Amino acid sequence: MSQISQATTDTNFDLKGYLSQRRALIEAELEQSISVTYPEILYESMRYSLLAGGKRLRPILCLASCELCGGTLEMAMPTACALEMCHTFSLIHDDLPAMDNDDYRRGQLTNHKVYGENIAILAGDGLLAYAFEFLVVQTKKVSAEHLLRVILKLSHTMAATGLVGGQVADLQSEGLQNIDIKTLDFIHTHKTGALLETSVLSGALLTGASDSILQRLSVYARHIGLAFQIVDDVLDITGTQEELGKTPGKDQKVQKVTYPSLWGIEESKRKSQELVDLAKAELAGFGHKAQPLIAIADYIAARTQ
Amino acid sequence: MSQISQATTDTNFDLKGYLSQRRALIEAELEQSISVTYPEILYESMRYSLLAGGKRLRPILCLASCELCGGTLEMAMPTACALEMCHTFSLIHDDLPAMDNDDYRRGQLTNHKVYGENIAILAGDGLLAYAFEFLVVQTKKVSAEHLLRVILKLSHTMAATGLVGGQVADLQSEGLQNIDIKTLDFIHTHKTGALLETSVLSGALLTGASDSILQRLSVYARHIGLAFQIVDDVLDITGTQEELGKTPGKDQKVQKVTYPSLWGIEESKRKSQELVDLAKAELAGFGHKAQPLIAIADYIAARTQ
Repeated sequence: MSQISQATTDTNFDLKGYLSQRRALIEAELEQSISVTYPEILYESMRYSLLAGGKRLRPILCLASCELCGGTLEMAMPTACALEMCHTFSLIHDDLPAMDNDDYRRGQLTNHKVYGENIAILAGDGLLAYAFEFLVVQTKKVSAEHLLRVILKLSHTMAATGLVGGQVADLQSEGLQNIDIKTLDFIHTHKTGALLETSVLSGALLTGASDSILQRLSVYARHIGLAFQIVDDVLDITGTQEELGKTPGKDQKVQKVTYPSLWGIEESKRKSQELVDLAKAELAGFGHKAQPLIAIADYIAARTQ
Repeated sequence: MSQISQATTDTNFDLKGYLSQRRALIEAELEQSISVTYPEILYESMRYSLLAGGKRLRPILCLASCELCGGTLEMAMPTACALEMCHTFSLIHDDLPAMDNDDYRRGQLTNHKVYGENIAILAGDGLLAYAFEFLVVQTKKVSAEHLLRVILKLSHTMAATGLVGGQVADLQSEGLQNIDIKTLDFIHTHKTGALLETSVLSGALLTGASDSILQRLSVYARHIGLAFQIVDDVLDITGTQEELGKTPGKDQKVQKVTYPSLWGIEESKRKSQELVDLAKAELAGFGHKAQPLIAIADYIAARTQ
């Protein structure tokens, strides 16, 4: 793996600067995406969670992938925002009392803690539906056919075949001690991996990328998606409340089966690094243009929040 | 009004036969739209509510409007099913304990009563997302541009600007005695009217109908939408549990402001008939082809369930 890693990592790329510049662009777009009107509490609740910070990893991946395929930021920004709306919808619903019952998210009270359960459910619903409207209204310089492929990919990912199915499998496995690796993989490929993969692929789909490019980006995205989840599980054990912006130790408290609970922390870290190296190897042929996606893969393995 | 009414009603049109034939077509499509796979409980829960009967008014309106504009059933059926998925999503979420807390819907236990609150929330989410996927995958012989217009209209209707906003306004008005007609109209144009209008318009949008046709269909749809809601409110007072398939008298029990509570039953009935007559007048120029939509307008005023 070390050879692949060396071959594809450019140590001169300023990832920190890149991520912070991209985040600023995305924050500015998201800020403008929803204005408050009657009934105000609903729009405020949607804005509360959508603008609560976070890594903005999904929109960043979408923008990077679009540029890798020769597209522009302008083409991809509405899709990038729609991905973040979909992600925020899933966080709001996952945190609900009837689901994971979380009080904190991104260092702030969860949506239902501030606005009540009924508004939180509806704010999530509103964000999911609005993501599709935003995509259609805001996307420019993309053919209708390419946009439809993005809508198809995103809706499939948000449905029972993606995040929603992953969340149900996760809920069902709660408290069970005998979850096998197959079930754990199902949960994570659906609950986390699917939207990360769609983030990468949608950027490419907007440009009408070829099947072979889509295939390589898909492998890249699946590897970083799984690495992301493994690191998430490890951070739940090793991270602090301040770093995570949410309560750590939650998995252990509910005796949840996770990658580190199956493999141990060290082996989990090794596996996530291996996945990141494999992901980067898929991008070897793209040259200089792949630098952001390669650096993001490294960042996923090394992140502490 | 009676002159308009006579001019546009063809008493020979067999509405009962028409509705039952259309319902059978739609039921068959919906039955095939979702198959059960892992995690089974989620798909079963989605199917439970989607296949629980009901009038199928929204898909029927979509099919009728598409045919009125020269389109085919084949073109409109995926949109018709997507509309019913969206409608079912909204029913599942509206019935939740955190919302209207209803135990019965369409004569059956509500989704959360059978599958639990967490699965019901996710089944709703899944149906909403799947509606868009189904639209894109299943729609044939419609241009990408026309399909995007349908997606735009539907997503706008399902977001805070439509059903979700209407439900929040409804929740906020609960228990308040001083709700004015403006607020009541906002609630119903958003909560009920918007999706009925979108059902009518989407059928026309699929065919690339002209703005002037869309405008007339929009007026038709708004009138029948409001009439539908007024009749709904009246039936909550005059209907039986058997007829309605849900608990009657609920509005009065929670002292909800409704059209009959503002206007009385007789005046409400008169208003709904007036709206139906106005709706039918919009279709006067379409001739024979408008028969189904005209008969449906009459059916809305006369319905007992």
